[in-house]
Amino acid sequence: MSDDPRHAGAASTVPVRQGIVDVDVHPGPASPDEIKQYMSMPWRDRYKGDRRSFYRHPVHGSRQDSVTAGVGPECSDPDLMRRQLLEEHGVAYAVLIMRTFCNIHPDPDYAAAIAAAFNEWLADTWLSKHNTDGAFRGSITIAQQDPAAAAEEIERWAGHPHIVQVTMDSGARAPFGQRYYYPIYEACERNGLPLAIHPGTEGMGINHQPTPGFPTRYIEWHCAMSLAFQAHLISFLTEGVFERFPGLKIVFVEGGVAWLAPLIWRLDSYWKSLRAEVPWVRKPPSEYLRDHLRLGTQPLERPDDDRQLLQVFEMMDAKHLLMFSSDYPHWDFDSPSRAFPKLPTEMRDAIFSDNARSLYELH
Amino acid sequence: MSDDPRHAGAASTVPVRQGIVDVDVHPGPASPDEIKQYMSMPWRDRYKGDRRSFYRHPVHGSRQDSVTAGVGPECSDPDLMRRQLLEEHGVAYAVLIMRTFCNIHPDPDYAAAIAAAFNEWLADTWLSKHNTDGAFRGSITIAQQDPAAAAEEIERWAGHPHIVQVTMDSGARAPFGQRYYYPIYEACERNGLPLAIHPGTEGMGINHQPTPGFPTRYIEWHCAMSLAFQAHLISFLTEGVFERFPGLKIVFVEGGVAWLAPLIWRLDSYWKSLRAEVPWVRKPPSEYLRDHLRLGTQPLERPDDDRQLLQVFEMMDAKHLLMFSSDYPHWDFDSPSRAFPKLPTEMRDAIFSDNARSLYELH
Repeated sequence: MSDDPRHAGAASTVPVRQGIVDVDVHPGPASPDEIKQYMSMPWRDRYKGDRRSFYRHPVHGSRQDSVTAGVGPECSDPDLMRRQLLEEHGVAYAVLIMRTFCNIHPDPDYAAAIAAAFNEWLADTWLSKHNTDGAFRGSITIAQQDPAAAAEEIERWAGHPHIVQVTMDSGARAPFGQRYYYPIYEACERNGLPLAIHPGTEGMGINHQPTPGFPTRYIEWHCAMSLAFQAHLISFLTEGVFERFPGLKIVFVEGGVAWLAPLIWRLDSYWKSLRAEVPWVRKPPSEYLRDHLRLGTQPLERPDDDRQLLQVFEMMDAKHLLMFSSDYPHWDFDSPSRAFPKLPTEMRDAIFSDNARSLYELH
Repeated sequence: MSDDPRHAGAASTVPVRQGIVDVDVHPGPASPDEIKQYMSMPWRDRYKGDRRSFYRHPVHGSRQDSVTAGVGPECSDPDLMRRQLLEEHGVAYAVLIMRTFCNIHPDPDYAAAIAAAFNEWLADTWLSKHNTDGAFRGSITIAQQDPAAAAEEIERWAGHPHIVQVTMDSGARAPFGQRYYYPIYEACERNGLPLAIHPGTEGMGINHQPTPGFPTRYIEWHCAMSLAFQAHLISFLTEGVFERFPGLKIVFVEGGVAWLAPLIWRLDSYWKSLRAEVPWVRKPPSEYLRDHLRLGTQPLERPDDDRQLLQVFEMMDAKHLLMFSSDYPHWDFDSPSRAFPKLPTEMRDAIFSDNARSLYELH
């Protein structure tokens, strides 16, 4: 991979940085033109950067202070982001996940072209000239529409020293345990890359809602995003994906976390009664989680009583499964110093740093 | 209503019975012919009692000991049910919910005809000659496809002394907070009848899946049923249904219970940030639950550690919201003596008896 000019800007070794790891940060281009230059025709003419959804935040979807006058929209300025996230909050590593919306399109070639152009843009900008200290770690975006093509895109980037994972959206046409997706999982496993699943395209374009029919407003649609993650997790586990791909690791980002224990109790109970239907699920579904699932914390559910959150953390094995995420620069940003109640030191270190360092080999 | 021959079999007053109240019991006819006799043409010719789904229990969906040789299929024999549920488990009242599958049909008239025929059958059989002690309390089945017709069906039965609620399935074409359904809620509120929502028709016929695409197998489909309830609850609360119908009470049956607190924490948090989008939601969504929502306990999620279930019960206000249900005669029957860990006496009395007696006025 070192001969590939695509990787020229990435340093091969940089010193390890001390501090928090934030596994959900969203850089974007200053304008769609930055992405278009990486596209061939006819996609270059077609792409307008459009992300319009029926479900829009009633005021604004991003922190208004993340916009740089004269540069571009939210989180298009690496220097501002470094000040607002890394310096202000002591974040050592920001795992970057681009919002491309490529999985809403019926045309698999167009979707793949969007994903590829964003990946090249990321490598040339945030992962290159703005990344001499290695604080930014990137996610390869893939389009689900053509899993074989997605696997090729994964191969194309897997050797990049600052690429730490693959990502795709939770909006989908089928639950993610289904065989259709297996070329993606095979490529992730072969290259040792976790797959991060991120919400935001539910019910858009060709994707189903994770609800019985269409929600009415943004608050409802946004709250129900956690249901897509619950459905995908049931599917991963009942289809036996982690038996077929024993090295696969999945990261759920922005899907909520407090639902995990109740769901897995329910699924474990059904597995006891119905395992004859899914003989490839060789142990209680709960026993796959520590080896195969991690969850970003934002937006963290917060009861009035902190004690209840700590109880939920214990039920869900949070010490091993959670990784801090801020969702910078979005409106519902979780601050590392404010989003959590006081945690036991060992748990705090695991969630804010150790779990992500281990998963992404940041050490 | 007393002049209506439909109500002739029902005693107007019977002594109060002591013991458990089971809010989810499923009587059925010995054969589809019992239902057809209540239908006019052309429905009588059309109806075959068919309930086939792509998602079927791999062995059998009901307790095999609930079938009476020479009488009919599971729970078609009131005497057997009295022995197996009421006598064996000390159940004083069984709230009957028929499984009609009427909401899967595209034709609203056919769906309404099925619902009406089942209601008449129930009134003539289980609520009449088999109910001299009043142990059986019935639910009016309605078809969602034509809410105005459903409201008429509610009016038709509301005065029956042994009818305690209305019921419809959670399988749906739209989340239940939407205005389309309001004639149903208005009729329920006007007549003081709770509305019980029961799963089993998700993804069948005209109904959407509560998942992003179709599940593969019964275990996945069955586990994901709880997602439909979560989606409907978000919809009820964000649409402001309980402000518009302050007397409306909803009962979630067979949808799981342990997901409630995490979901409502999430929704409360969004409400704080996004309430300008839904100004009709006048207080935190969690504050509507005690006045408007009850949940049947079966199938109760059971962690290995009983302490964790008790913590979840505290988080979700179980003492006020839960009502025991067994789901007799289905395969995943919850026994009153085995499904629960040891509960504090006051909580146990509330869940096994008091909450249902208060809701259904069984005192």
